Amino acid sequence: MSKKLVLAYSGGLDTSYCAKHLSKDKGFEVHAVSVNTGGFSKEEIQDIKEKALQLGATSYKSIDAVTTFYDKVVKYLIYGNVLKNNTYPLSVSAERIIQAVEIVNYAKSVDAKYIAHGSTGAGNDQVRFDLIFQIIAPEIEIITPIRDNQLSRQFEIDYLKENGLDLPWEKAQYSINKGLWGTSVGGAETLTSHLPLPEEAFPSQLEKTGTEKVTLTFEKGELIAINGEKDTPVDNIIKLESIASPYAIGRDMHIGDTIIGIKGRVGFEAAASLIIIKAHHALEKHTQTKWQQHHKEQLGNWYGMMLHEGQYLDEVMRNIEVFLEDTQKNVNGDVVVSLHPYRFVVDGITSDNDLMNASFGSYGEMNKGWTADEAKGFIKILSNSGKIFNHVNNK
Amino acid sequence: MSKKLVLAYSGGLDTSYCAKHLSKDKGFEVHAVSVNTGGFSKEEIQDIKEKALQLGATSYKSIDAVTTFYDKVVKYLIYGNVLKNNTYPLSVSAERIIQAVEIVNYAKSVDAKYIAHGSTGAGNDQVRFDLIFQIIAPEIEIITPIRDNQLSRQFEIDYLKENGLDLPWEKAQYSINKGLWGTSVGGAETLTSHLPLPEEAFPSQLEKTGTEKVTLTFEKGELIAINGEKDTPVDNIIKLESIASPYAIGRDMHIGDTIIGIKGRVGFEAAASLIIIKAHHALEKHTQTKWQQHHKEQLGNWYGMMLHEGQYLDEVMRNIEVFLEDTQKNVNGDVVVSLHPYRFVVDGITSDNDLMNASFGSYGEMNKGWTADEAKGFIKILSNSGKIFNHVNNK
Amino acid sequence: MSKKLVLAYSGGLDTSYCAKHLSKDKGFEVHAVSVNTGGFSKEEIQDIKEKALQLGATSYKSIDAVTTFYDKVVKYLIYGNVLKNNTYPLSVSAERIIQAVEIVNYAKSVDAKYIAHGSTGAGNDQVRFDLIFQIIAPEIEIITPIRDNQLSRQFEIDYLKENGLDLPWEKAQYSINKGLWGTSVGGAETLTSHLPLPEEAFPSQLEKTGTEKVTLTFEKGELIAINGEKDTPVDNIIKLESIASPYAIGRDMHIGDTIIGIKGRVGFEAAASLIIIKAHHALEKHTQTKWQQHHKEQLGNWYGMMLHEGQYLDEVMRNIEVFLEDTQKNVNGDVVVSLHPYRFVVDGITSDNDLMNASFGSYGEMNKGWTADEAKGFIKILSNSGKIFNHVNNK
Amino acid sequence: MSKKLVLAYSGGLDTSYCAKHLSKDKGFEVHAVSVNTGGFSKEEIQDIKEKALQLGATSYKSIDAVTTFYDKVVKYLIYGNVLKNNTYPLSVSAERIIQAVEIVNYAKSVDAKYIAHGSTGAGNDQVRFDLIFQIIAPEIEIITPIRDNQLSRQFEIDYLKENGLDLPWEKAQYSINKGLWGTSVGGAETLTSHLPLPEEAFPSQLEKTGTEKVTLTFEKGELIAINGEKDTPVDNIIKLESIASPYAIGRDMHIGDTIIGIKGRVGFEAAASLIIIKAHHALEKHTQTKWQQHHKEQLGNWYGMMLHEGQYLDEVMRNIEVFLEDTQKNVNGDVVVSLHPYRFVVDGITSDNDLMNASFGSYGEMNKGWTADEAKGFIKILSNSGKIFNHVNNK
Repeated sequence: MSKKLVLAYSGGLDTSYCAKHLSKDKGFEVHAVSVNTGGFSKEEIQDIKEKALQLGATSYKSIDAVTTFYDKVVKYLIYGNVLKNNTYPLSVSAERIIQAVEIVNYAKSVDAKYIAHGSTGAGNDQVRFDLIFQIIAPEIEIITPIRDNQLSRQFEIDYLKENGLDLPWEKAQYSINKGLWGTSVGGAETLTSHLPLPEEAFPSQLEKTGTEKVTLTFEKGELIAINGEKDTPVDNIIKLESIASPYAIGRDMHIGDTIIGIKGRVGFEAAASLIIIKAHHALEKHTQTKWQQHHKEQLGNWYGMMLHEGQYLDEVMRNIEVFLEDTQKNVNGDVVVSLHPYRFVVDGITSDNDLMNASFGSYGEMNKGWTADEAKGFIKILSNSGKIFNHVNNK
Repeated sequence: MSKKLVLAYSGGLDTSYCAKHLSKDKGFEVHAVSVNTGGFSKEEIQDIKEKALQLGATSYKSIDAVTTFYDKVVKYLIYGNVLKNNTYPLSVSAERIIQAVEIVNYAKSVDAKYIAHGSTGAGNDQVRFDLIFQIIAPEIEIITPIRDNQLSRQFEIDYLKENGLDLPWEKAQYSINKGLWGTSVGGAETLTSHLPLPEEAFPSQLEKTGTEKVTLTFEKGELIAINGEKDTPVDNIIKLESIASPYAIGRDMHIGDTIIGIKGRVGFEAAASLIIIKAHHALEKHTQTKWQQHHKEQLGNWYGMMLHEGQYLDEVMRNIEVFLEDTQKNVNGDVVVSLHPYRFVVDGITSDNDLMNASFGSYGEMNKGWTADEAKGFIKILSNSGKIFNHVNNK
Repeated sequence: MSKKLVLAYSGGLDTSYCAKHLSKDKGFEVHAVSVNTGGFSKEEIQDIKEKALQLGATSYKSIDAVTTFYDKVVKYLIYGNVLKNNTYPLSVSAERIIQAVEIVNYAKSVDAKYIAHGSTGAGNDQVRFDLIFQIIAPEIEIITPIRDNQLSRQFEIDYLKENGLDLPWEKAQYSINKGLWGTSVGGAETLTSHLPLPEEAFPSQLEKTGTEKVTLTFEKGELIAINGEKDTPVDNIIKLESIASPYAIGRDMHIGDTIIGIKGRVGFEAAASLIIIKAHHALEKHTQTKWQQHHKEQLGNWYGMMLHEGQYLDEVMRNIEVFLEDTQKNVNGDVVVSLHPYRFVVDGITSDNDLMNASFGSYGEMNKGWTADEAKGFIKILSNSGKIFNHVNNK
Repeated sequence: MSKKLVLAYSGGLDTSYCAKHLSKDKGFEVHAVSVNTGGFSKEEIQDIKEKALQLGATSYKSIDAVTTFYDKVVKYLIYGNVLKNNTYPLSVSAERIIQAVEIVNYAKSVDAKYIAHGSTGAGNDQVRFDLIFQIIAPEIEIITPIRDNQLSRQFEIDYLKENGLDLPWEKAQYSINKGLWGTSVGGAETLTSHLPLPEEAFPSQLEKTGTEKVTLTFEKGELIAINGEKDTPVDNIIKLESIASPYAIGRDMHIGDTIIGIKGRVGFEAAASLIIIKAHHALEKHTQTKWQQHHKEQLGNWYGMMLHEGQYLDEVMRNIEVFLEDTQKNVNGDVVVSLHPYRFVVDGITSDNDLMNASFGSYGEMNKGWTADEAKGFIKILSNSGKIFNHVNNK
């Protein structure tokens, strides 16, 4: 009888343990799948494949989902200028969603009866995976050896060694997750509330020390060119990351409420995403009305929160996406950003849709489009409600 | 017959013109008043006083409103982590409100029939002043020579020279407004959309080049100590500014929607306020529930927007203030911040109210407070609504 | 030299005065226009036309905008279940917007230099008209004799009589405004805070005393059939009004904040719109997710507020419209409503998209889709944050 | 060894089964507790007590929590005009919260090791109880026989009969829950989406057929008098219910999203709460500013949602409560309501804090506080942003 199982496989210790344990001890026909949302090179994927087969996987498949990740998620995070708690671009959280969707769809396509992942019982990823798996394929059973057995790293290393896989599982001090939209860094200091991550914990190190200006061109809110050179948004993000990360830009710490109710702290490095969001936001300040910005902020934050919590499939997310997309019609133009070691500055914007238009009078300078009396009338009427309130309530 | 007039007087060109013009040409009995919200030293106030009297003012009064400014406004901006458009700590906007309130109350106390200010017809200040004056004292007539006559700086300089006041009205390239909560810088580049302010436009210049750690202690959301030394919040803000501004920290550009509907751009430098807000926010992330943070963000932003727009007297502002204050009960603890040239980093926090409490399990690590089965049950039930939606709508 | 003027003309006393006064006393070439958003019959339009020409208008045009009104506004008010202050379906406010847009577009098409309306200086309509006129055609001058001269009704009646138009301008006790989406009733009691409108003030009187069931069929949120008979949404609204208004359904009083800051009170009768909104809302409760409903309510209310205040042209309104439209994909089905004298009851709904689906367990009854342990695990994890908060803060 | 258990006991079939089963089969020392939030008369409590002891309870305690319920919950539901989904006054949901809090505090006070309730695994009540129990007393184990064993009513009836309690457990068609803030009616038709509840399903039947006016006096948002007679808010609610329920007022159907993700439908009858909320809301429309009402609606709805979902102990609820309370300072005055069979009408209000104050000009009538030119200036400036947007984007 078929015990066909699809394993979300990353090549790390936890999922390597799962591959061996599930195929050997539990008798599953393990089909390992990894979904690339920007974190893996071709060489790494080849390594992952070999390791998977060596560990007993019947098949291995690598799904390239970078463009899907951009089209279905990253695009909207840019439209919404989404920074969780005003800080974190949701790098890893966002990837997990697309990985989950791709994996469960793959599992359905190969008619698997089981689906496995290597998440623990104390994090957000278990929720993101389980939630999406269950909604899209409630008929597929979910298997989670790490969560179920609360295994220690040492136990897993020993088990793999006993089973012939004596890899140098580096006693990595930090758990690093890299993707198109940023890299997260967890471990050691992030388990405390008071310690910052040391310089060397971050994947990119300071290599450039001068300053450099970069021009980002947006069309309907999408990044269509870097320094005047057109390319796909995905490639522009990658290019910007390669320009900016040698400045060690975009490091910070996120302290958030996990889906399971505890607080979590994680470091991250996300040069491209932070620069893009701040540049895009600056362009919006020039091209959108006050109330567009107001509602975008509220819905963008909500979108980020639900995405973070694995609620990507709630229909309201589709509704918010069309809202955000519709707000981008006039978000066109160039944004110049200055890069410096550890920081960047948005210099300014140029846009045909710029609403800061001198022909209507300049802020604080002389008014050209209206008279002093009109301004006075405006304020007079504007004071009506306060005047009445004060009068009535004797203040 | 009495033509008693209170003039909001800053000692600048516009209000100097007003003092002379209103007393000499218009026959008003001019009582000059300046409200210090942190921008003036004792020496400056003495200068302002002498100039006012020289220009024909019958009396001059300096109102020290720094503590009032903190108690009535700044405190709530900290509680709410208020940054307009995620950028601007509302430095000048916030001051104007308290200045307007103090001036109109003074005018009422001296039984003035008129009140004058030097705002133009193209900015936000006219609205803030007029609005608050009219609500608190609708019986007092407002006089605004600069707005009414759309006078050029050169005209005003010539007029003052003709009237015996040949001061070196520096053809200041930038209009600088300094106060407890920050300094704004307008002019030249800020009138364009694309140019950044040059280094020298900012009042503070880089003087320190190393790094330095500073500890901020908060009690119920208020900054009660710097590096372990207790003082009043006002003095702590001033002290922090003196520590941080030599790092040239806290410069940025605000692009906003003015109350009169045009876009405006203004530079600012606000080391202390930005550091305090980010440190305070970090402490809140550790000590508040998810939904406290969610609603604080919404109400804090709204509070900032209305304050910015002169709507300080709307009763909803009082309601929001009690809300914000009530959220601060557990916002206690130390925040360590690292200062570097042009930037700062929040290192971490220590708090007895820290909700990131390892005894309940650590994020992503092992779960101590619940079992794998409980986590699975949680996610299973959490998936109900999505599962039903998908099933019913055949997706 | 051409003094071509387009007059927003309704045939009432104020606009009749304007027609005569502007053509005769002021020498304008008056082109009278009325925009029918559901309030005028063919006979009434013929009367209005004759009167306009008799009063000196050079031309008269009736623009039929009922379908436009539905497509551009009413549709979204239904999608958003918009009731201002939970009460008022925005009947007249909504019409004014479309009337203003149609009139200014007409004025541009005939190359008019002036545009006139008969609003006073104390209401919302002046704002709606002026605002939309100025945004769409800032080059056209706005003429408002009633507002400018603060004329009394008696003065206008006398003036028209002197000028040969001795119509029986009924000393109407109530000002009635009828349209597709409801009828407003102002005057006498509505100028007080404590008096209700008497029975006879309402246009429809109780004629049916039994009860009657009516079935409303919605497709993607639009009312496509009444009692199984398909028709256009506009005709369905009209039909429903004719069925329900003899029950004197849909009367209430709206107390609102006017755009100019004073409070206003107005009675209304809006059987069809209230029934449709409540029926549509019931269908949404069955077919939308919790968070769709949550955000729909917030954006729907905001949409209604801005529409009410004449801010229809703000780009955020377009963004909200696409959001609202996107939420309607599954809002399909029948809603049965029972009509009784003065009230109605939503009996229930039938929908292929109904999420209240017994195969997943019924509320409060037995759970079929999950076990007791899963429910317990759910609640256990759900309690984490509160448990930690309580533990840390010793409550 | 002590197996001391506190049982949330209502005297119904489920908790009677629990009392017997837990004491006899499981060997617990059962201490039955019922919390009266307005649903029980003295006689009923005496009956409940006798039954509890007969079923094997070691002790029985009745906690009178009507005033606590008002002070801790109902008051804020009135301040916030809370109607879930614009319909349901949260009658039963709100009571469960206070019952849970009282029971767990009692359990702690008697040093119980266990706490039991009779909820099923398919409803909201299990979440409300478990959540509050676990947060306040995580050390106490929760026992839920009905949920765990998915017992049928017939099984429970048979079990009790076998154990000597042959009560006429009426095969009640509807499950009725009565309390201070309303009565819920579930069963039969409420398990479908399309059927309304029949007349006889509701506890109150139509007894009065004329009409009657009742005056509600509010002070700082609280109902302090009915028809001029002062009493406590609790007694005023009870009195109003006795006046209004013979008109069969306040019946409706709530369709909501349960905490566990399925949709639920329940009928209710809540004459007093609906009348009070609508009257209170009318008074607020006259006495609060536009933005107070705006934010009250948002926070009030959120408060209702969280209360409904058992999240009463989240600290944000305390923050919202102080906000709501602060908004009530001026909510003073009389509201006259007309009662009719099956419906009521808010006639109008009288208040010293009424902001609809004729001395500042009346809505739509002549403007007294400002000139036509001021109104025109107001609208001119108000059009700036739209004018610029249109100009820039060539619309």
